[in-house]
Amino acid sequence: MFITLEGGEGAGKSTQARRLAAHLAQRGAVLLTREPGGAPGAEATRGLLLSRAWDPRAEMLLHFAARREHVARSIRPALAAGAAVVCDRFADSTYAYQVGGQGGDAALWRMLVDGTLEGVWPARTFLLDMPVEAGLARAAARGETNRYEALDIGFHQRVREAFHMQAAREPARWRVIDAAQPLDAVTAAMLAAL
Amino acid sequence: MFITLEGGEGAGKSTQARRLAAHLAQRGAVLLTREPGGAPGAEATRGLLLSRAWDPRAEMLLHFAARREHVARSIRPALAAGAAVVCDRFADSTYAYQVGGQGGDAALWRMLVDGTLEGVWPARTFLLDMPVEAGLARAAARGETNRYEALDIGFHQRVREAFHMQAAREPARWRVIDAAQPLDAVTAAMLAAL
Repeated sequence: MFITLEGGEGAGKSTQARRLAAHLAQRGAVLLTREPGGAPGAEATRGLLLSRAWDPRAEMLLHFAARREHVARSIRPALAAGAAVVCDRFADSTYAYQVGGQGGDAALWRMLVDGTLEGVWPARTFLLDMPVEAGLARAAARGETNRYEALDIGFHQRVREAFHMQAAREPARWRVIDAAQPLDAVTAAMLAAL
Repeated sequence: MFITLEGGEGAGKSTQARRLAAHLAQRGAVLLTREPGGAPGAEATRGLLLSRAWDPRAEMLLHFAARREHVARSIRPALAAGAAVVCDRFADSTYAYQVGGQGGDAALWRMLVDGTLEGVWPARTFLLDMPVEAGLARAAARGETNRYEALDIGFHQRVREAFHMQAAREPARWRVIDAAQPLDAVTAAMLAAL
């Protein structure tokens, strides 16, 4: 089973991905991974992505190059071996950030999903949702900074709206979880939805 | 006018691109550039491409990420300013090496051309053509080595065949030049075809 966690900055995706993987590990092999990254070439591409500002289409292509490497070398082999895969961000983040947040090309995103992932797609996606101001404050309190956290609040609101639109479009795959709850309540809500 | 030079290893593309640009500079502004590279982010992506072996689809995506950055930040602005652009390799090399040489996905290449270049496409392409053994010997004599030069002769023959197939498919754009001739004769043949 391929499970992804999505959401804005400071929503607790990494923490909840670890908790979910620890729970699933009681029943069998689990690959806990993240994007951009999750394979050596994809991690190198992550470094490139975070190092500078890119033309929006170039940025989307870099994300899918890293994703393809991740899918081909890590996710698909793990799924083929019967492992569960828990991934902190996946293609939906590229949609929310590059299409929703930056106004990028939705048709290019669709084309890249269809042309490069060969059907590897999450069975369950959790949207860890909270107001953007609270998420950004949490991320800042953790001392995290990246290129996206520095963008204006309007950007982050567009990202949140794009996630909600995606969840509404594919309700069978998505579960929206209130990420402002205590950590244990968030984990329990995810487990209940599996 | 956007002019590209294509061909296998050791065909003299860089030398002839410089000569052609020097000639055109007598009549106006010229951007002399190369791929992968030609813009800061694209040069960084070139480093990534040459640093390791990639999944074939990931490699094609990285080439188009670098190309998109190059087109958006260097080629399109130069053309808009009325400059001539002379580029050592472009999208046709990705076709010849990744599709022809490595057996990659031709439909993905087409989709990436259509979805990311926004119609920026060479008006004239020179195929500097010579037998692969001679080209590889030239490249080796210059002390050049890269990941592609180390591949077997069959790979380079498939690359050459793919270039010829592309030239045959779009004869209005392509001119095939015998690159085994003396340097001056190659330059003269290009100038005669402009």
